[in-house]
Amino acid sequence: MNGAQSAIRTLADAGVDVCLANPGTSEMHFVAALDSVPGMRGVLCVDEGVVTGAADGYARMTGRPAATLLHLGPGLANGLANLHNARRAYTPVVNLVGDHATGHKRHDAPLESDIEALAGTLNGWVRRSASVAEVGADVAAAVSAAQDAPGGVATVILPADVSWDEGGEPHEAVAPRGPGAVSRRTIGAAAEALRSGEPVALLLGGEACRAEGLLAASRIAVATGARTFTETFPARLERGAGLPAVERLGYVPEHAAHQLEGVRHVIAAGARPPVSFFAYPGRRGELAPEDAAVLALDEPGQDVVAALNELAELLAEGVEPLCAKESRPDVPEGPLTAQNWVDVIGAVLPERAIISDETNTSGLMLPGAMFGSPRHDVLALTGGAIGQGMPVATGAALAAPDRPVINLQADGSALYTITALWTQARENLDVTTVLLNNRAYAILRMELHRVGADASGKKANELLDLSRPDLDFVRIAEGMGVPATRATTGGELAEQLTRAIAEPGPHLIEALVPPLL
Amino acid sequence: MNGAQSAIRTLADAGVDVCLANPGTSEMHFVAALDSVPGMRGVLCVDEGVVTGAADGYARMTGRPAATLLHLGPGLANGLANLHNARRAYTPVVNLVGDHATGHKRHDAPLESDIEALAGTLNGWVRRSASVAEVGADVAAAVSAAQDAPGGVATVILPADVSWDEGGEPHEAVAPRGPGAVSRRTIGAAAEALRSGEPVALLLGGEACRAEGLLAASRIAVATGARTFTETFPARLERGAGLPAVERLGYVPEHAAHQLEGVRHVIAAGARPPVSFFAYPGRRGELAPEDAAVLALDEPGQDVVAALNELAELLAEGVEPLCAKESRPDVPEGPLTAQNWVDVIGAVLPERAIISDETNTSGLMLPGAMFGSPRHDVLALTGGAIGQGMPVATGAALAAPDRPVINLQADGSALYTITALWTQARENLDVTTVLLNNRAYAILRMELHRVGADASGKKANELLDLSRPDLDFVRIAEGMGVPATRATTGGELAEQLTRAIAEPGPHLIEALVPPLL
Repeated sequence: MNGAQSAIRTLADAGVDVCLANPGTSEMHFVAALDSVPGMRGVLCVDEGVVTGAADGYARMTGRPAATLLHLGPGLANGLANLHNARRAYTPVVNLVGDHATGHKRHDAPLESDIEALAGTLNGWVRRSASVAEVGADVAAAVSAAQDAPGGVATVILPADVSWDEGGEPHEAVAPRGPGAVSRRTIGAAAEALRSGEPVALLLGGEACRAEGLLAASRIAVATGARTFTETFPARLERGAGLPAVERLGYVPEHAAHQLEGVRHVIAAGARPPVSFFAYPGRRGELAPEDAAVLALDEPGQDVVAALNELAELLAEGVEPLCAKESRPDVPEGPLTAQNWVDVIGAVLPERAIISDETNTSGLMLPGAMFGSPRHDVLALTGGAIGQGMPVATGAALAAPDRPVINLQADGSALYTITALWTQARENLDVTTVLLNNRAYAILRMELHRVGADASGKKANELLDLSRPDLDFVRIAEGMGVPATRATTGGELAEQLTRAIAEPGPHLIEALVPPLL
Repeated sequence: MNGAQSAIRTLADAGVDVCLANPGTSEMHFVAALDSVPGMRGVLCVDEGVVTGAADGYARMTGRPAATLLHLGPGLANGLANLHNARRAYTPVVNLVGDHATGHKRHDAPLESDIEALAGTLNGWVRRSASVAEVGADVAAAVSAAQDAPGGVATVILPADVSWDEGGEPHEAVAPRGPGAVSRRTIGAAAEALRSGEPVALLLGGEACRAEGLLAASRIAVATGARTFTETFPARLERGAGLPAVERLGYVPEHAAHQLEGVRHVIAAGARPPVSFFAYPGRRGELAPEDAAVLALDEPGQDVVAALNELAELLAEGVEPLCAKESRPDVPEGPLTAQNWVDVIGAVLPERAIISDETNTSGLMLPGAMFGSPRHDVLALTGGAIGQGMPVATGAALAAPDRPVINLQADGSALYTITALWTQARENLDVTTVLLNNRAYAILRMELHRVGADASGKKANELLDLSRPDLDFVRIAEGMGVPATRATTGGELAEQLTRAIAEPGPHLIEALVPPLL
């Protein structure tokens, strides 16, 4: 077999059976090999931001990496923003980046590019396959490295000749490094803070945002009076009736500071110590009060859920968690507003939904409407690089074809990776996109005020305005093969959303929602 | 004034008066400053591939850089593919990349990223402004560096605090380094080859593809019998009646090898020595015959046009260039084909048009139809990173509002930067996009065969197929505010193109053209 065939066989043997692809000439042998080696599903995305974001969404739902297939440096560059988000989510992803044949590099052909430097910005594992004999081992090592706790992005650079040469050997799967244990000493320090009688905030992130971690944290909170929060943008949060209703830490630093006001201890469990998304003139970057002690319960790659369970055993023996009861908001009457649209989602959310949430300012009120809805998963914008929501929804639907995926999507962010719709149509994925069109970069309008800049100028405001011309997402979706409707009232949105979820395949609903601010 | 204001004043004083922007929070002071400092036009693009590609198109037509405004590492990453193309075109571009405030870097906030490493892949000038007092000097140095012959991409990283701090000083413009002279010795060696009586190919690129260089090369060719070619994808080629009809070197290596068959000397003038775009099993990367001597007439940054003029004086005194006469193809009857659509363009091309050409396989026949059309400029895909055509057309229209811009655009490539249409609509730019929809990555189908891979597989072919669902570019364009029509015959395309060019503002014509192969 050739190198490409050995790569695919190695991937499949290691449980990587989906390849999100935007290939070019240097990847043609890999593409051809998809037919001769069984066990790999190729999914075409028409830009690389969709490739990498879908790989992220896929792995957030399965726990297993998908492979990406990317075309030299420019292909990797186009996919880097969503790989940045994946990195921040600790999502396992295996990139296969084709390169010029080894002997062609010296010619400085038009697509010659520094792939190692680009991949290096992801702080992950990077290796260039030096010969066909090594491809199998390199790919096996990459799959393993991507899954080493806590998970990350691994990149194999595949020169074209290494793919086309004969003599490839598949390599058996290499076991990844599992999570380590949190030290007794750290657990003891956390327990001491929680027992101190002083106000404590428990900030949950990563694996701690799944059911088991949330339940343990809730027991601790009930027993000790600690406040619990999730990080602002968790990779995967379980939410809904039967689970603790944990508020997320606010995006706006004044909000987060208010949430943490008066606490003397912040225990970060699966989360980084809380800092503001951006700096603002004259404001500290840390969100915890200046006199609060910040304790990291775990380091990346340690088993934070086990640590929370241990703390719960120490501090809350026999204490039950406090879980949300089933309860849904009413469908609001009249025109949609930034406040009321979330109630429609809460009102009609189906069982076992996956929500890809890139609502930005439009979604500030969302969690409150959802705590009593049927249990669901939320996939959030982990790294702040916008254009994640639609690809992640695409990958989640590939990962969980038996579950409805709802992509709650801000307009400005949608435009970066709008072609995800085409892939959803091609693969007939059950994704319903609720496109929140407020015709502005509303978050930037807010930020323009917040940074203290003079926000009255005409030129400045034009750079934050998405009207002139208004975007018509119904037409755009239809142009990409996805049936679409428009909703302007709560009733319309509820009716269209219910119908879209009931019908197989992708749908888009453009919800005209005025900006919050 | 604050740092942002000093940056804008410095740019404007150095003649940089257009800023293509996709800003975020870290750029808000820069955005605000656009109103307080005169002389800068801000143009919003809704993804960064459009920002950087438009900056490239703008500078190809004006010779002056535009500024880009990008949001941290992910924003720069999204724009890197078209910066790669700009780098390969030697286009001057000044990137302004906002970053977290200096003191916020250590917090590892979600958007923390290695901007220097990303910018470093462009092999250009990169500097991080360390304080508000230095911003003016840094920006002036960047504008100068971008314009140092032969031109390149310069990047200033602007931490948010450096933008918002008071104490900024605009810096006066710094003169860039002009082109150097080609040595007498090199000119002598070229003259000797041209006088040798042996077959010579003169390969023109860069500045040599403008009228003056083409005319000098034609005189040399007439006098010596040398064959002339342009590089396959010139940054800016002048073409049409009254100019020499210079064939371009073929993209397919067999074609290029045929063009260069039997030559004993290849003189590269403003071009790199000819190599194939990709490697293929068992084929040399060099396109010149093995026994041919390859001579670079110039190094990047040397005045190749002066060298060609000097050679023409030496070898072709009193010899006239051979120029194309006015002559237009007839508008073909019946359905559009991969062969005949180019005749429509040749038949109706207006005076002084600018063509942004990202036709890929659909455009193989294009040059032949255009040599006798009115004189026009062609901007080609210099670096092979697809998604260039629509942004470059956008930038060219900003640069030359008095000239019609025609974007000949392949379907697959269009999807990377389709939101350029929205910017064209907002700025009411006279761009007519002829979207060549063949419903496939036709170039990859060709490459799949060419690399010797087994091309019969179902999975492989699905990854190269853009049908299922068919893309409807008319709806997509309308959704972005651009009026659109569809053409299936030569007559329809001619009629729609003529009307679109006559009407102000952008238009899109979806031309259904079956694949060439």
